[in-house]
Amino acid sequence: MHRDEIPTPALLLDLQLFETNITALAQHCKWHRCAYRPHVKTHKCPDIAKRQIAAGAVGVSVATLTEAEAMVRAGINGVLLTSPIIEPAKIANLMKLVSRQRDMLVTVGHPLQVERLAAAAESLEIPVNVLIDLDVGDKRTGILPELAEGFAKYISKFPLLKLRGLQAYAGHASHVVGFKARTNATRTAMEKAVTVREELERAGFPLGILTCGSTGTFNIDSSINGVTEIQPGSYVFMDLDYRRIGGQNDTTTSFDDFAMSLTVLTTVVSTTYSQRVTVDAGTKALATDVPIAPEVKELTGLTYRRAGDEFGIVSVAEGGKRPSLGERLELYVPHCDPTVNLYDKIYAMRRDEVEAIWPVVRGYG
Amino acid sequence: MHRDEIPTPALLLDLQLFETNITALAQHCKWHRCAYRPHVKTHKCPDIAKRQIAAGAVGVSVATLTEAEAMVRAGINGVLLTSPIIEPAKIANLMKLVSRQRDMLVTVGHPLQVERLAAAAESLEIPVNVLIDLDVGDKRTGILPELAEGFAKYISKFPLLKLRGLQAYAGHASHVVGFKARTNATRTAMEKAVTVREELERAGFPLGILTCGSTGTFNIDSSINGVTEIQPGSYVFMDLDYRRIGGQNDTTTSFDDFAMSLTVLTTVVSTTYSQRVTVDAGTKALATDVPIAPEVKELTGLTYRRAGDEFGIVSVAEGGKRPSLGERLELYVPHCDPTVNLYDKIYAMRRDEVEAIWPVVRGYG
Repeated sequence: MHRDEIPTPALLLDLQLFETNITALAQHCKWHRCAYRPHVKTHKCPDIAKRQIAAGAVGVSVATLTEAEAMVRAGINGVLLTSPIIEPAKIANLMKLVSRQRDMLVTVGHPLQVERLAAAAESLEIPVNVLIDLDVGDKRTGILPELAEGFAKYISKFPLLKLRGLQAYAGHASHVVGFKARTNATRTAMEKAVTVREELERAGFPLGILTCGSTGTFNIDSSINGVTEIQPGSYVFMDLDYRRIGGQNDTTTSFDDFAMSLTVLTTVVSTTYSQRVTVDAGTKALATDVPIAPEVKELTGLTYRRAGDEFGIVSVAEGGKRPSLGERLELYVPHCDPTVNLYDKIYAMRRDEVEAIWPVVRGYG
Repeated sequence: MHRDEIPTPALLLDLQLFETNITALAQHCKWHRCAYRPHVKTHKCPDIAKRQIAAGAVGVSVATLTEAEAMVRAGINGVLLTSPIIEPAKIANLMKLVSRQRDMLVTVGHPLQVERLAAAAESLEIPVNVLIDLDVGDKRTGILPELAEGFAKYISKFPLLKLRGLQAYAGHASHVVGFKARTNATRTAMEKAVTVREELERAGFPLGILTCGSTGTFNIDSSINGVTEIQPGSYVFMDLDYRRIGGQNDTTTSFDDFAMSLTVLTTVVSTTYSQRVTVDAGTKALATDVPIAPEVKELTGLTYRRAGDEFGIVSVAEGGKRPSLGERLELYVPHCDPTVNLYDKIYAMRRDEVEAIWPVVRGYG
């Protein structure tokens, strides 16, 4: 199948750039002796997860139980559930997965969650590996560092809960613009996690794992003593929101450690006006959660803005060439994760040919 | 299944309110002798479309070919494709549907589209019913009114294209705040369409259909002479963006012709802080295209803001009661269409019990 035959809007992945990204993270982590468990909430795609594992990832991180189920079904080991699960029905489903994959890691951040998980583990007589989810400034989930030791002691009362380490995700650091400022933000957060780790080890809790880190901080967190693994997600695709955070050591204003491999393919469906055209990608095709407009790939002088659920308007700069009816444009996406979440498949492209079509699993259910 | 057992985030439909909405539009249209072909881009759900047909809709409107396929597969007649289709591969797929459902209506807005559609119709020897898509101020798709007569003559050169009428969607009028202002906006747009209709009829083109109208203008457009049918979508669910446009004759600041039947169910997953909690519905669970925050249903003093792809923060007003860990909240959604598009099912609720689970089809493919 040629690019011209793909029904639009569609999600395209440039395999050459994607493979560069997969290799770049693998080599970086190997060099810095840091493990990585990439976050699949970015792609929700078992085919991509398999390639990450083949490149050297120790497992994958997931945000939802549906993602976890898809990964286990695809035969991927070392699944880390990074979000807290508190609903009894979800804990029951989680335990079904743990019974199939004994090395699964589950984060916990509250005594009630520990109790429910322990009760489920005991009724099935299955041990569960847990990580303490630390709130190191992200202020969304996890327990505060000063409560971690007491929490670890509480967990240890439940013989089937096996404390394996800590999770310290600093989401507030991932998109800080400028390498120095970003380094400061993530180091401040990670110091808290490393301190907790040392305290817990002194208190007799040997912790194998300290997992943290996003695409934005991959090359900072991976060098911090005490951090054992990172969980970047967006690096496989990249997006406009990450591109603007600036490169390593502030040598570039563009974060170019990874290449922009993902685009949305769209078709010009109306050319009524001289300086603008309508394309078939709107808010159902491009997530709108960050205040950055999608960018037309390769062609200059064209500016995209959304115009409803199914349409976008591409404006043509003075003196520029207006795209013709039926012409196809590729758009770089503002934020990859929620955009990929809008599609059920990814067209994996080798230049202009479709090499494979990879299913994307739904996040909920 | 009880509400408490539904895995979150999830889309809930209050059937009692939903049925009220279905009936309210049906009665309004019957009273005003205006047909309606509700837009299923809002719900993408054959189960809902069937209930709209049962209540008296003459068919359904669809925005994408995937929606059209789902409706035809579900046995729904009178499908109107409101968006322009220009890609040859899509036109071929469209013709497969037309060959199954001869009363399908296809909108056209450009000679190239007419040529491609006519060629496909001729090669299969199947007639196609077409509507001229008029641009009456929406500035997204369709031909300008002054070009309509020439365009109709052009269409008439292709014997298998059967001109059935006009589509004049005034998306720019749908959300105008205040009934008088909204009335002016849509009447100005519709005057153009009615004028074109009269001109074309004088020129010998008998047009059976003039379709237009959104949820916001349903009770304005349905009374305009020359308008034969309307295509509202959101009325089945309603949302916060429609609620703020104001009621009929400006008697209320809230648009209350239809009830808020749709919510997102979410679970409190973290309670680390005293004045706020974290819930499991973020930007992947609630579309962010309009600058309005989701609103917590029933409970007062709680304010939702998004906090990433999977999480939201619910803040508690001074002196208010903080929701507890594991507690469930329902959120009214800012914009129903792109929010429903994030889910693969709707839980149809009768009070706190799940009466049915209705699949939502994907929009692309």
